[in-house]
Amino acid sequence: MTLDYRFAQTYRNATGSAIRELFKYMSYPDMISFAGGYPSPSLFDQAGLYAAMERTRSAAASDVFQYGATEGRPGLRDAFRELLKGRGISTTVDRLLVTSGSQQGFDMLIRTLIEPGDTVIVTRPAYAAALQALRLAGAHLVTVDTGANGIDCGELERVLSSGVRPKMMYCVPTFDNPSGNAIPLEQRWCLVELAVRYQFILIEDDPYGELRFSGKPLATLTELASEIPGATDWVVYLSSLSKIVAPSLRIGVMLAPLDVLGRCLLVKQVSDLCTSPWMQLVAQNYLESGALKRNLPLFVDAYRERCATMTGMLRSQLGDQLHFTLPQGGMFVWGEWKGNVDAAHIFKRAIAANVMYVPGTSFYAQKPDPRTLRLSFAMSSPQQIVEGVRRLRIAYDRCHESLQ
Amino acid sequence: MTLDYRFAQTYRNATGSAIRELFKYMSYPDMISFAGGYPSPSLFDQAGLYAAMERTRSAAASDVFQYGATEGRPGLRDAFRELLKGRGISTTVDRLLVTSGSQQGFDMLIRTLIEPGDTVIVTRPAYAAALQALRLAGAHLVTVDTGANGIDCGELERVLSSGVRPKMMYCVPTFDNPSGNAIPLEQRWCLVELAVRYQFILIEDDPYGELRFSGKPLATLTELASEIPGATDWVVYLSSLSKIVAPSLRIGVMLAPLDVLGRCLLVKQVSDLCTSPWMQLVAQNYLESGALKRNLPLFVDAYRERCATMTGMLRSQLGDQLHFTLPQGGMFVWGEWKGNVDAAHIFKRAIAANVMYVPGTSFYAQKPDPRTLRLSFAMSSPQQIVEGVRRLRIAYDRCHESLQ
Repeated sequence: MTLDYRFAQTYRNATGSAIRELFKYMSYPDMISFAGGYPSPSLFDQAGLYAAMERTRSAAASDVFQYGATEGRPGLRDAFRELLKGRGISTTVDRLLVTSGSQQGFDMLIRTLIEPGDTVIVTRPAYAAALQALRLAGAHLVTVDTGANGIDCGELERVLSSGVRPKMMYCVPTFDNPSGNAIPLEQRWCLVELAVRYQFILIEDDPYGELRFSGKPLATLTELASEIPGATDWVVYLSSLSKIVAPSLRIGVMLAPLDVLGRCLLVKQVSDLCTSPWMQLVAQNYLESGALKRNLPLFVDAYRERCATMTGMLRSQLGDQLHFTLPQGGMFVWGEWKGNVDAAHIFKRAIAANVMYVPGTSFYAQKPDPRTLRLSFAMSSPQQIVEGVRRLRIAYDRCHESLQ
Repeated sequence: MTLDYRFAQTYRNATGSAIRELFKYMSYPDMISFAGGYPSPSLFDQAGLYAAMERTRSAAASDVFQYGATEGRPGLRDAFRELLKGRGISTTVDRLLVTSGSQQGFDMLIRTLIEPGDTVIVTRPAYAAALQALRLAGAHLVTVDTGANGIDCGELERVLSSGVRPKMMYCVPTFDNPSGNAIPLEQRWCLVELAVRYQFILIEDDPYGELRFSGKPLATLTELASEIPGATDWVVYLSSLSKIVAPSLRIGVMLAPLDVLGRCLLVKQVSDLCTSPWMQLVAQNYLESGALKRNLPLFVDAYRERCATMTGMLRSQLGDQLHFTLPQGGMFVWGEWKGNVDAAHIFKRAIAANVMYVPGTSFYAQKPDPRTLRLSFAMSSPQQIVEGVRRLRIAYDRCHESLQ
């Protein structure tokens, strides 16, 4: 499989250009967008971030403006160690690598572990940018279903026992993008146990875990791995400040077995030498000041309200037309039009009615389900959500009429 | 060539671990280091950078803290277009891509163009991190000499006419790292013409070009390419704010043919989604304010003095023992111990005498010349340089005594 072929493949499936297309619509003046996977700018802690920035003035110029260590600032790695401790994950600083966002962490894992033709397990549906990165790497993608009941671990076990030997599996166990699910504890145990038994790297991407509106926190795969002999050799944890602080910091973290981390360090060195030490110090100051603990509830409360507004409106306006999940956290509602309705058809009517979402087909490695769609409640105010779902109902009706 | 093999190879040649080793010595309390390729922290324009940061407060939160376009902020791309115009390069914004430093630009080019086994031409010696990135990609490296007379274009022509078909060539035509050379105009023409004739991507890495102490500016390969039919399809220009503003911004730029740029955009999307929009806006504000024009002469004047001090001291202390180039700009003096003297042996004595440099072997893809060394004058004050070269003389003498 040549590089040219992989690029051609990726362009054909290009989530990139599909999302570029979406951006165009998002800039329409009266558009209400449920499309983006972006956090709400109105919730960014500007004061806290500028205060953290101000405190960089007291550091030495060589510490703020110079190149930094590829693995990240010791202080930030320690702040991440603390953050992870609050999530039930005990680790040491030497197993942590600062990344330019969680995306870079995933990209480095692909670069260090995957050769063209290697098998990778992904959920069906899965995060579109992850699929794109894997396609570009020439990975052979094998899917297991995920849905309202979580990841189909029975299917995963059958796939593995049939002889499929993946190098890695990628999943977002808590408030998945796009499905919105937080998979139950028994599935978490199952995934970790299968990773150990079949010796593949299990990547737990966890950017949304702290955005929980209801229900009790569930142990991460990474926490569970510490209780299963040998499992810490197979589980990699990725997280990011993008969804709980601000994406523009481009600061994420990877917790990985030392051999994987060592390879990623080498790849990071050739990729960008280091993540901006200035931004790292801002992030460190922000975390150390306790600002995250103060501001995070604002995100959670706002998203809880927005999610409730969206799901309430979907029920009242489109309850007979649309199946959807009730998320306990995160940023997404995953829906499925009932009957033989194509989300792409309704999408055109939706754009005309000034509301938008992402048709679900972008999130499938194989056999896209054309009825599906992803709605994000994060970027819109409750008022916009109310109006947006009304427009969605109008779009549905128009589409339906035109089909009659 | 498997990924595991490439990692093993890269670790063996690891500039990474060699440089890690150097870092250890650099932290010795009384060490004078000529080793790093870092700009001088005392010259960073802290006031200008914080002023540029302050001005981000007047932008919308969604513009400062949100995700941004993968290709970079339009305003920053336009500021780069202006910057390049000042270097004699006319281009349009659509051919520019903002990168997380020049290193990321190079890495993306490798990822979009090179498959294991593909041939890449590099100079001998060449920038160590470039070699590392190419090794990791499994590139087959073919070298052409560079030295006090510039790149040996005759050798390059012989290599090409013998049937070697490179996918790309990487070079730093102006104030090379490590050789310090600015190659003459006729060699610049020659490189561009050969790239067109033999159809390979010619990468001009230009982080140091504006750090000129003496002599007249030379046209970049990229400027020349605009005068040779078809050549703009083959020349890629990389630059960075790291050496003329501050490395911690992690802001660079790539100017490339549109098809190459399109592929790099796809790779950047999977690599890190975008370069920190906050840092991009700081960089944009900094460039738009004219601060670069005000501060750059401070870098140039300081480096001119430091370079003169270093070369003067080398001449007086080690003129009979060391060949070296007289750079017209940049950050490096490239030296060669006369006689059968190994730079690694003297290095040990140098460390003991509290002075350090980089033994030249790190910079060779093939057949390292053990007599060579790279000295950077950028990080040390003239007083430190005087003392450092004295210590180097002591180290040389001790090494020489022990060999007798």
